[in-house]
Amino acid sequence: MLDRPDGRVVISTDTFVVSPLEFPGGDIGALAVHGTLNDVAMMGAEPRWLCAGFVLEEGLPFVVLDRMIASMGAAARAAGVPVVAGDTKVVERGRADGIYVNTTGVGIQYDDFHPAPNRARPGDAVIVSGPIARHGMAVMAAREGLGLETTITSDTACLVPLMRRLRHQVGDDVHVLRDPTRGGVASALHEIAQTSRVGIELDARALPIPEAVNSACAMLGLDPLYVACEGVLLAFGAPDRVPEALTALRGHALAAEAVQIGVVTKDHAGLVVLRTPIGGRRIVDLLPGDQLPRIC
Amino acid sequence: MLDRPDGRVVISTDTFVVSPLEFPGGDIGALAVHGTLNDVAMMGAEPRWLCAGFVLEEGLPFVVLDRMIASMGAAARAAGVPVVAGDTKVVERGRADGIYVNTTGVGIQYDDFHPAPNRARPGDAVIVSGPIARHGMAVMAAREGLGLETTITSDTACLVPLMRRLRHQVGDDVHVLRDPTRGGVASALHEIAQTSRVGIELDARALPIPEAVNSACAMLGLDPLYVACEGVLLAFGAPDRVPEALTALRGHALAAEAVQIGVVTKDHAGLVVLRTPIGGRRIVDLLPGDQLPRIC
Repeated sequence: MLDRPDGRVVISTDTFVVSPLEFPGGDIGALAVHGTLNDVAMMGAEPRWLCAGFVLEEGLPFVVLDRMIASMGAAARAAGVPVVAGDTKVVERGRADGIYVNTTGVGIQYDDFHPAPNRARPGDAVIVSGPIARHGMAVMAAREGLGLETTITSDTACLVPLMRRLRHQVGDDVHVLRDPTRGGVASALHEIAQTSRVGIELDARALPIPEAVNSACAMLGLDPLYVACEGVLLAFGAPDRVPEALTALRGHALAAEAVQIGVVTKDHAGLVVLRTPIGGRRIVDLLPGDQLPRIC
Repeated sequence: MLDRPDGRVVISTDTFVVSPLEFPGGDIGALAVHGTLNDVAMMGAEPRWLCAGFVLEEGLPFVVLDRMIASMGAAARAAGVPVVAGDTKVVERGRADGIYVNTTGVGIQYDDFHPAPNRARPGDAVIVSGPIARHGMAVMAAREGLGLETTITSDTACLVPLMRRLRHQVGDDVHVLRDPTRGGVASALHEIAQTSRVGIELDARALPIPEAVNSACAMLGLDPLYVACEGVLLAFGAPDRVPEALTALRGHALAAEAVQIGVVTKDHAGLVVLRTPIGGRRIVDLLPGDQLPRIC
């Protein structure tokens, strides 16, 4: 039983089946908290409560369960959001894969901040808060034992502080917020272009892709634009507010490398177009299915 | 994004792993809706929104998925509660068992109705809304192919109308509401006795146990007092309001056989005691674990 909320309620639910349960930079516990808090925050809402439902496989070592629960607790405490309800079911060996967890987050929307996927307008700047494609490649590398020279760590993190900073510094001139998880930056932008009926033009040279991620992607024939982030946000907003937006973001360690990566256009509505380093242009299409299974 | 609520928010989450997915009287879809709506209703709240998170096993026939989704939809529509958010994950064959589903329900508490597990008082009547132990035995019989002469059907149902009737006719003289799911009537009463620091005395002759359920329990060495219901509620309330409570309940088809099964005592606080038909008394203890796995 919770307080009487002082605003509109926002709710988001997400089920996590990531394999392996632990990977460089994170684990299913932290991911399940961050993923849902971030979805609530991207709607311009302050997350207030979380609940969690577990499916546990018979034979799961308690020490692993304890670690995952401790990780969830730490992530929720760091965000200041209590886990107020929960449920646990146990299934027979071979009927799950260690731990699956669903989290549902409830938040209260700010009255003065209304980012939404249909509010992108021609002329808007597109900003990304940090290096992309880390989470998906960290999980893939851990699962497949790629043995890369450099360990890629997941970016899993709570984006609530970045959302608060943008609201405080830029307010409703922030038109869209989105965390590019499954399907990566490409899929998130594609959906926004479709929902807002605008075009998006990306500058390939501006995209912050870590060298190790680029190499691993090349090795596996993956395009980093489609690889999931779990601690990065995309912000669309009025072009004259870009300096304040970048200052607001860069003031937080998570977004020290925030950068503009594109603009919204009237042309080619519904499409995302990439300007390549050699001056070409290619359409960034939607992939028909999940490129990487079980990364969240 | 939802309305601004006009009261305190109640939230409940539950994960469903029932096997088989379909059983006489219900399926995982209907169960997942009823189970969570009932938990919200038992807190004296009107359920307003549901969300659902799925884990699907690769190879699950679409026709089965479609049936389960249709069943969820029908149950939610019948209750007048929209499913406002959802998520789907797919895992490899052998990493789940067809479908697991988590539902989270959000409701708004009535200002004039406050049933709570710590409000049972000596003298209170204990009422049950209908025949007990049907759900657990229906699932067990379907799973184990017991080949009973009479098919036992699950009682899975939405208890919201019964809660509304009790509120309307009896109001805050209803002290406790509880749906006795996992662990059955015995576990629910045990928890209430502990939380309210009172004793509970049950009359074995008054317990509504269907004949077929009794036989199946005897065959398997199970005590029906510990077998889950999914469409039955327990209500504790002022003894002088019993007639109104029974009239309110019996006016709805779900509770045509509502009956008083016991009283709350000052003696033996924390314990549930059963008066047997031959005049004996035995303590109804808490079972150390789940008697029946994967029945919800």
